[in-house]
Formats: sequence, C-alpha cells, structure tokens
Amino acid sequence: MKWLNQSITPPNHDIYLQAIERQNQLAKPSGALGRLETLAAQLAAMQNKISPQIDNIWISIFAADHGVVEEVVSAYPQSATAAMVKNIIQQGAAANVLAQFNDAYLEVIDVGMVQPVFEADVIQCRAGYGAANFCQTPAMTEIQLEKALYSGRAAVFRALQRDADLFIGGEMGIGNTSSASAIASTILRIDLDEITGAGSGISDSRIIHKIKRLQHALDLHQTHLQSPLKILQYLGGFEIAALCGAYIFAAQKGLPVLVDGFIASAAALCATTINPGVAHWFIFAHQSHEKGHQHLLKAMRAKPILDLDMRLGEGSGALVAIPILQMACRLHNEMATFEHAQIPTC
Amino acid sequence: MKWLNQSITPPNHDIYLQAIERQNQLAKPSGALGRLETLAAQLAAMQNKISPQIDNIWISIFAADHGVVEEVVSAYPQSATAAMVKNIIQQGAAANVLAQFNDAYLEVIDVGMVQPVFEADVIQCRAGYGAANFCQTPAMTEIQLEKALYSGRAAVFRALQRDADLFIGGEMGIGNTSSASAIASTILRIDLDEITGAGSGISDSRIIHKIKRLQHALDLHQTHLQSPLKILQYLGGFEIAALCGAYIFAAQKGLPVLVDGFIASAAALCATTINPGVAHWFIFAHQSHEKGHQHLLKAMRAKPILDLDMRLGEGSGALVAIPILQMACRLHNEMATFEHAQIPTC
Repeated sequence: MKWLNQSITPPNHDIYLQAIERQNQLAKPSGALGRLETLAAQLAAMQNKISPQIDNIWISIFAADHGVVEEVVSAYPQSATAAMVKNIIQQGAAANVLAQFNDAYLEVIDVGMVQPVFEADVIQCRAGYGAANFCQTPAMTEIQLEKALYSGRAAVFRALQRDADLFIGGEMGIGNTSSASAIASTILRIDLDEITGAGSGISDSRIIHKIKRLQHALDLHQTHLQSPLKILQYLGGFEIAALCGAYIFAAQKGLPVLVDGFIASAAALCATTINPGVAHWFIFAHQSHEKGHQHLLKAMRAKPILDLDMRLGEGSGALVAIPILQMACRLHNEMATFEHAQIPTC
Repeated sequence: MKWLNQSITPPNHDIYLQAIERQNQLAKPSGALGRLETLAAQLAAMQNKISPQIDNIWISIFAADHGVVEEVVSAYPQSATAAMVKNIIQQGAAANVLAQFNDAYLEVIDVGMVQPVFEADVIQCRAGYGAANFCQTPAMTEIQLEKALYSGRAAVFRALQRDADLFIGGEMGIGNTSSASAIASTILRIDLDEITGAGSGISDSRIIHKIKRLQHALDLHQTHLQSPLKILQYLGGFEIAALCGAYIFAAQKGLPVLVDGFIASAAALCATTINPGVAHWFIFAHQSHEKGHQHLLKAMRAKPILDLDMRLGEGSGALVAIPILQMACRLHNEMATFEHAQIPTC
C-alpha cells in the first residue's frame, strides 16, 4: 500500500492569484459573484489553466455490503444494495437522472456486495461477500482493505484515460452510515452521540440502539484503532475504502474531486489523515442532512456549495452541484471586462 | 391601477399532495432528496400538472436610474446603468452568460434611465429620466408609478405569449439598494441600520452616510408612507415598481416566479403587501450577501435555495438556481419507483 503515501503536488497558487485578478476585472462589482468567483479560481489552480472547464464529469459509484446490518441498524434490508445496483444499471436511480442531466459518465463498481450482480455494466472489483460485522470481528482483512483501496485507484485511472476533468465518488451500501459514523467518531474523537444519525431513515429509538452497537464495536477494537488504515480495516466498508483510495490517487494525479455527502466525507477524512495533501484537491458539494456531516466538514475546514437537506448518497449531492461549478467557469471565462465593456467607475 | 388587486388563484394543493405521494414511491428513502422533493411538488402545484417542467425560462431585466445617487450613496457613477445595459445587449454581462448556460430567453427593458439606450434590443417603457432624488421630493409621480408597474405587467404578457414556464425579474440601476433599503425598512418597520448594506461595495463609513440620508428621506415623507403603493411612489425606483407589477401579474396568470436577491425581494415584499396571494407563486432563489436581504426573506417566510454570497443583481442569483429546479423536476419525473425497480423494504 506504499502508493497511498506518494507525494501530492498542490494546485498552482500563481494561477489562483491570476484567476482572482481576472475576476476583479470582470464587469461587476468586485466580489459580487461570491462563491462562484473563488470556485472558478480554485478550479483554475487545480486544472493549472486560467480558463477552467468542467466538461468531462466522471462518477464512479462503489457498492458493497456491511455485516453490521445484522445488528439491526438500518432502515432497509441488506438485499436493497444489490437491488439498487440493478436499478442503477437500468438507469432508474437518482444518480442516473442527475448524471444524464449533467452529461456525466457514470460507472458502477461492485467492491463487495453479498449478492453479486453479474451483468456487463457492473465492474467487478470484489474484495469479499460484504464486510464482516465489525461488532464482532474486524470488518475486513488487510488484504481486503488493500484490494478495496486499489479498486478506487483503478476507477480514477479509468477516469483519467477518458480525460475527466472532475471526479465524483458515489456509494451504495445498506449499513454504511454505521461504518462512516464509527470511523468519523474514532478519527475526530467526537462522541458517537454527536455523529450518529438516522441514515436512510431509522427512528430515534433505533438511533440510540445504533449508537450502543457502534460504541460496543469501538470498545472491542479500541487497541487496534491507531492509524487511519487500521480504522478503515476494523470499521470500514469496502466502498468507503474504495472512495478513500480513489481520492488519494485523484489528488496524486491532479484530478479535482467533488466530494458528496456523509459517507464520502468520512472517506475523504480517512484520505486526508493518510496523506494530508489530498485536501487541496477537494471541493465539497453539499451539507448533508445526516447529523454527523457537519463535524466532518468542520474538521476538514470545508465550506460546502449547497445545503438542500439531501441524504441519499450515490454521489447525488455532488451531481446536483455540478452546474454551479460549470456556471462559475463560464462566468469566469466569458464575461466582458470593465475595460472592454467601457463601464465607468468612480 | 385596479388590476393590481385582481384575485389570485393559489397553486393546486391536490396536485401538491399527489406529487409528494409520488416522491414517496421513488426508489430512495422517503425525504432523501430534501428540498428537491418539495421544490418539485411546489412546481407541480403551480403548473397544475403532476410532472412539472422548467424548459422555457424567461428573464426580464428592468433598468432605471435613481436621483438619490446625488446623495453619494453608491460605489458607481450613474452612467454605469446605461453602460451595463449596453454590456447586456452585447452579451457581456453575468446575466447573459447565465441565461445562455440555462437556455433562458433574456430581454432588457428601459423603464427610466437618465441616458436612454436607443437600440433595437432595448425595450422602451420609460417612465421618466430616472426617478427623482427621494431625499428631496417623491421619487416619482403617481402616473409614473402606474407606468412603471405596467411595464412589469407587459413583460409578463410577453413571457406568457412565448409559453414561459418560469418568470425571473432582474434589475440594473445604480443606487437601487438605497431605494430597496428605504422601502424594506418602511414596510417591515425595521431600523435602517439593520437593513442597509454595502450595495455594490461602499465603505463602512459610506454606509453610515447612506443610512443618514435614507433616514432623512423617511422622516421627510413619513406622513405619506401609508400604503405599499405610496411607499413605492415616494421611495421607489422605476425598476422596483416594474418588478412589483410583473410579480403581481405573473401570480394572477399562474406563472411561477423565481425571485432573485435583495432588490427583487423588496419588490416581492411590495407585491405581497399589495396583493397577498402573490406569495404563493414565489420561489426564492438565493440568500444574497446584501445585509438587509435576510429580513426580507424572513418576513416572507422564504427559504432560499442557494446561499453563495452573491450580490450582483441582474437576476443572476435566480439564473444560478435554475438547474436545481430542473434537476428537481427531472428526478421527480424520471426516477424509477420502488415497485418498478423491485427494491425490498423492511
């Protein structure tokens, strides 16, 4: 797993400053486009060009199962993971509709569902038949972790081959807010009470039960949870590890990452804890409705673009933010300057 | 001006409920699309059809001047209004870039600039050579107010002729945050200190000066400021009155309105104060950076879609929100249902 620690070149700060300078010359009061100005400059710095563009959008959705659903912590049965993957390849999921709207290339990867979906449109990178129930044993072996991390790297490799200019990681996995909550609580050292939410929609009393089972897992594995990789191995899901690997490799290759919601942000936190340079390559799409997300965003000093009370996963929040980034680029590239438009100033 | 009080039919509440019911059948946890679900249902109710759509977007930008700029309350000279209108017809403004991105039909209307721009692409509905300096006299005569209100009605009439399914009102007018602040303070009975901001970018000391001059105007006209129409006449700008007239007529015709930022919201407040039924036809696009906007939104119980620190006007914030509405519609119309996708539930 040496590749995880390979160095990351930060975005080009000179280009960032040039882009801000251009924004100040455009025919509008300085700063009047707010976040759209800094987003354009951030993308310019990441893409190393004064005129950034978001034309080739890539989304990889990683699907996997979680043994922890045995602990009755989810609103849906485990079989919903495979059913939703089938729905994705039949173009019926939210992510499909949003990918089509944004002309994004969408792929779905099985990184370890309990029921594999052997169809041509599902990329097989299986690390196992679901992660183990981490309330009883480590969620995965070191070999499985390595495989899952690498499946993320492989997805970014495919994105780069197709000249993607933005990478989105999505996920599908019944039970994965349990895994993400356990990981976030451990890395951030914030109580599970503060970080554990309703996921896909469990009741308040079920949330209390979920917290108890997660606390049991944290107590059980306590002595092993000393590094981000061990935390991923003991508490992770395959799809969270895959996202983590994808983010790290994207940053190493200078490919901007648009981070989705709670699960994706837990993976992003793992990635920045493993290799801090990753953080420079993140743009955070939205504030999720899921309770713990605000803590993850705060820890990463992230200011998300949208706050629409979404909590769906599949990369859906990131896809909804795409037009905002595109409009930021278009304004940056196409507006007239004060000089050209001969606008008088005081 | 009798037409202003003609009755307004509310959106179809049965369709709203049917749309929410449909959202609950889609292949996602109930409520997981957050605001996108209620926005789709709101649009369905407004368009009186279970499958709403935002295809024909119309934006009318009303331009006018303000005598109050004599009081040195703006960061730009008055001549910037006409220069920006020229920039709009030359496709160089933010609104042009955003309208093109969203395939929106954009028109610009001179409702009373000091320097008319006599070009084919500028619709002439001039109520005068700029509003008068309301620190000295009423901003306009009753006849001028009537003409400005009617210019908004005429714009909506054109939008309806072209089968618009959403109306955006934009504005351009150096000095118009002064007018909007004075109007908002008077209607909401909130101190000018709370509601007056930097507009296009004046210094803190200049804001204090702006507040003093606005307070002088409110004191001067106090006895006349007894109805929303009188408030518009004494403190308004022609473009604010035009927006107010447009909003009222759009609501009377059942055309959904996407409200932009501070100036547009001041006009929206006038409209709902004149004819309360208008409020049902508003969707609020964004929270502006301009200080007073939060008070206007709160008074109208509005929850804006975006919060991107924008403060440009021209309808730009509304245009940035368009893809969010479109994606809400597409998800609502195109996602598979649980039943169709055979997703198991507990």
